Amino acid sequence: MAYVTIRDVAREAGVSVAAVSQILHDKGRFSDETRKLVRDTVESMGYVPDQRARSMRSSETKTVGLLVPDLRNPYFADLVSSMEDELYRRGFTTLIGSSGESVERQDSFIENLLGQRIDGAIVVPQGVDSPGVESLVRRGLPLVFVDRRVPSVDSVPFVVSDPYPGIRSAVAELMRLGHRRIGYVSHPALGSFSVNEREVAFRAITGELLADGETIVVNCDATYESRQRALDELAESGMSAVVFAYSPDAITMLGLMTDRGLEVGADMSVVSFDDIAAFTMMTPSVSVISQQAETMGRQGVELLMRQLAGDGEAVAGTQYVPTVFIARKSSSALCR
Amino acid sequence: MAYVTIRDVAREAGVSVAAVSQILHDKGRFSDETRKLVRDTVESMGYVPDQRARSMRSSETKTVGLLVPDLRNPYFADLVSSMEDELYRRGFTTLIGSSGESVERQDSFIENLLGQRIDGAIVVPQGVDSPGVESLVRRGLPLVFVDRRVPSVDSVPFVVSDPYPGIRSAVAELMRLGHRRIGYVSHPALGSFSVNEREVAFRAITGELLADGETIVVNCDATYESRQRALDELAESGMSAVVFAYSPDAITMLGLMTDRGLEVGADMSVVSFDDIAAFTMMTPSVSVISQQAETMGRQGVELLMRQLAGDGEAVAGTQYVPTVFIARKSSSALCR
Repeated sequence: MAYVTIRDVAREAGVSVAAVSQILHDKGRFSDETRKLVRDTVESMGYVPDQRARSMRSSETKTVGLLVPDLRNPYFADLVSSMEDELYRRGFTTLIGSSGESVERQDSFIENLLGQRIDGAIVVPQGVDSPGVESLVRRGLPLVFVDRRVPSVDSVPFVVSDPYPGIRSAVAELMRLGHRRIGYVSHPALGSFSVNEREVAFRAITGELLADGETIVVNCDATYESRQRALDELAESGMSAVVFAYSPDAITMLGLMTDRGLEVGADMSVVSFDDIAAFTMMTPSVSVISQQAETMGRQGVELLMRQLAGDGEAVAGTQYVPTVFIARKSSSALCR
Repeated sequence: MAYVTIRDVAREAGVSVAAVSQILHDKGRFSDETRKLVRDTVESMGYVPDQRARSMRSSETKTVGLLVPDLRNPYFADLVSSMEDELYRRGFTTLIGSSGESVERQDSFIENLLGQRIDGAIVVPQGVDSPGVESLVRRGLPLVFVDRRVPSVDSVPFVVSDPYPGIRSAVAELMRLGHRRIGYVSHPALGSFSVNEREVAFRAITGELLADGETIVVNCDATYESRQRALDELAESGMSAVVFAYSPDAITMLGLMTDRGLEVGADMSVVSFDDIAAFTMMTPSVSVISQQAETMGRQGVELLMRQLAGDGEAVAGTQYVPTVFIARKSSSALCR
């Protein structure tokens, strides 16, 4: 049998179950011999008190569930790692899962988490209604959305990056470098609140700053073909710079540019969302708009902790973490 | 109250707890009205049967714990994602945690997992004895080690990459390109079984193939200074090619080479362990020895499934997954 129960310990030590329980909780009146016998038996049999039984009596399990769409995406790996570090620092264990960008798989993880009786959860949800998210919300369990939210659910505190400061700095820097034709690549198929917000911000900021220039917004999805088509559109409309909303698009399309003999930095300046390690290692290094994953993770944990402390009212609404533009070599002076 | 209990449902519907339980299990004799009333009440109150209570009665929770050292390391992110995909395909939910390369944090996650009554676990352990790993092993819970193991524990099936095929191909290719002075950078501080095995393999293979040449093995750790010192040693001993055992060392030291005006590929050929995405994006692209994370993940899951099916005897011992050399532009002809 895989699990040793308190009954097994009691039988082995020749005492009652109640005696084992009291001795483990430093209660009751027992001889030193009995205490030692029980403790030695617990040790030698490898008995661990059942977390589930314990957590059914008390409301605290000191366990938090984290759900992100994809651990292979370094932005989410950073986000989840920063939350896990912060939770560990505060004495919590973290149970992580990923949805693989699938609503069904997200809901299956949530269903399991609810069965495990966690204290709360921090979720990057798929951006649509689903039974899993509904049951999380209906429980009134401490819950925070990070990076994405479910449009119909506005009762859950939400931490998201504010795209305006970073996009504003990026566009201003590209203009200072001489660019007047700045394209934008979006990825609406993600259904991501934050990715969609970026497009709104880009349109607003270029409408204001780039009144004498020209912009084009093209869409792509996760297919190679759609990314090729997006690059065609940028090239045909004579853009000299491009801002990517979603880093996996940028990574594929930077490769496509090189394949086509377009020199990144010289022929096409590039700025992409997400300060991931790969962008610092590429040649030329890629200028980014950083979402500050560490800060977002810490704020998400902070909002959860305040709910756990019973301060739920104070944390409702959306918290914006400002984005930051980081200039590297892929954005350079227009030389045509 | 966060959790609706079966008692709350019974009270709301005006029936007994036993009636709710029987109706949910499609048992007992009740009118269609009563069945509908109970089902509607369960639905409207958002009652989910308690996984813990259920799993205390049956031995299957359909939940597996996965522990890796660091989700920010893309090799482990790939490994854990491939295991999670495979487990989901087989109907299991995965609870992931990371140890941050800390024994204390590893044991804290294991302790929590044991409390959650999982069906089994796949662990990349810290390579030392620890109370957490001991209690996992003592339980006789289905358990698999992947990539690293604990030297004193040989009862747990272990999946690890076989470094020989990949290193042999890499050394043979470097020799074909004219290299006779091939260095090696190790990272003993990790305490990683697989990283240590690679050094043994490199020494054996160069001893056999490169009898007319020269090799040097230098050690570094995670500090910038130790990596600078390692590069000094390689340069001073006139190596024209280097094999890295641990990809984070390669990433930092490739940057150091560029800073020092050493042209990667021309002045120093480079091969690194781990086929991570960043190496395909760097200029020049980096030749790698791939551990085939997907294959290792699938085999780890397969070994766990066979234990869950009661076939524990058949899976003992170590399974080796062959490494594969992938030539890219960082390994090129000696031109001095």
